[in-house]
Amino acid sequence: MSDFPTGGVAVVGGTGPQGKGLAYRLARAGHPVVLGSRDADRAADASGELRSLPGVAAPVDGASNEDAVRGAATVLLAVPYQGHAELVASLADALAGKLVVSCVNPLGFDKGGPYGLSVAAGSAAEEAAGLVPSAVVVGAFHHLAAPLLLDPEADLSHEDVLVCGDDADAKARVLVLAADVTGGRAVDAGRLRLAAQLEPLTAVLISVNKRYKTRSGVALTGLTPAAVKEEVA
Amino acid sequence: MSDFPTGGVAVVGGTGPQGKGLAYRLARAGHPVVLGSRDADRAADASGELRSLPGVAAPVDGASNEDAVRGAATVLLAVPYQGHAELVASLADALAGKLVVSCVNPLGFDKGGPYGLSVAAGSAAEEAAGLVPSAVVVGAFHHLAAPLLLDPEADLSHEDVLVCGDDADAKARVLVLAADVTGGRAVDAGRLRLAAQLEPLTAVLISVNKRYKTRSGVALTGLTPAAVKEEVA
Repeated sequence: MSDFPTGGVAVVGGTGPQGKGLAYRLARAGHPVVLGSRDADRAADASGELRSLPGVAAPVDGASNEDAVRGAATVLLAVPYQGHAELVASLADALAGKLVVSCVNPLGFDKGGPYGLSVAAGSAAEEAAGLVPSAVVVGAFHHLAAPLLLDPEADLSHEDVLVCGDDADAKARVLVLAADVTGGRAVDAGRLRLAAQLEPLTAVLISVNKRYKTRSGVALTGLTPAAVKEEVA
Repeated sequence: MSDFPTGGVAVVGGTGPQGKGLAYRLARAGHPVVLGSRDADRAADASGELRSLPGVAAPVDGASNEDAVRGAATVLLAVPYQGHAELVASLADALAGKLVVSCVNPLGFDKGGPYGLSVAAGSAAEEAAGLVPSAVVVGAFHHLAAPLLLDPEADLSHEDVLVCGDDADAKARVLVLAADVTGGRAVDAGRLRLAAQLEPLTAVLISVNKRYKTRSGVALTGLTPAAVKEEVA
């Protein structure tokens, strides 16, 4: 795939904290966003909330998941893993041929805390790719804490967004989007199959959050900002 | 388990780059170390190499894996995953009752690069715990690049060592060791089962290393050094 439009972004699961937070940061960076939800009215309400937040610099609208997807070239999947396969399958026609960014974290919780769920496809991102073969799937945004994304005062520029995928052009596009979301670095983490490592790492972050009463995120050492920028440019 | 001696550390796989590097950093911090190897002569040679490096502040010796383990209260497993179960099983008597720190990364490599291997027990750390039920297993040190550990000039204090385990006292002991290894932060990452996330994350780091021609490592955002130190103290 040689080119991706830089137009609007649809966020499937756009009324959940992760989806809404990513949408807010994208809109602040000037990307038109359409929040998708199973319930178009809820999506419209959530889009109104986002429009009232400081710094929004692009249109934010709400629609059904399917309408949101149909109107966008780039689609963020920001849904819980529970029900993920069914939802992606139900949107398969609309998702065909699109750039799909999987932000899904397959996690379980029990009295021992959070843990990574076993996923037959390897990862939620690979599961989506298997369900919509004509889409180009990239994994990203697994580790950004939703409350920080939604906090207008929170500076995320010290957090790395790790991006994985098998299509170089699609990955390059998502690296740009990711840098726009945080104002910091986006890192090419390798092949799509490494989503199997990125997704459940969130269980470690949640565990650390509980232990240290914080909102932790990921940064890699050994990378200069300049080196990463050069690669993205 | 209420108390762990702070005496010498045995490093099973002490002639490999990861084991040798961890041993060097421990010896620099004043911990007596015994390198273990299948071949005691190779272990003796490697210990001589380490003694010649700058800053070594404690005895460094070499022995067979079994002798090394028998003489130490704390044992680092720093071996490749290939052959891990057989090796641990062969040392089970010697490992009984000890504090065992698993540094093992179950990784595969193919033309697509590195990837996390599927481990029936969940992780190498849990595999070791299953093979030696009387040992207390903690996971740590998965993400420190061996060439940096062995480079006397390399400053590792900006890297986080993520430590997981189910025994609070054992984990506290390893958090101290880990901070000694890097001179920086050690982070309580949660339950031992989260080794299933920490171990294969190394595949992402290796992928990033190749992409950006660096030696990457992990740091978490959202944790102040003070907060972590207070928890350790």
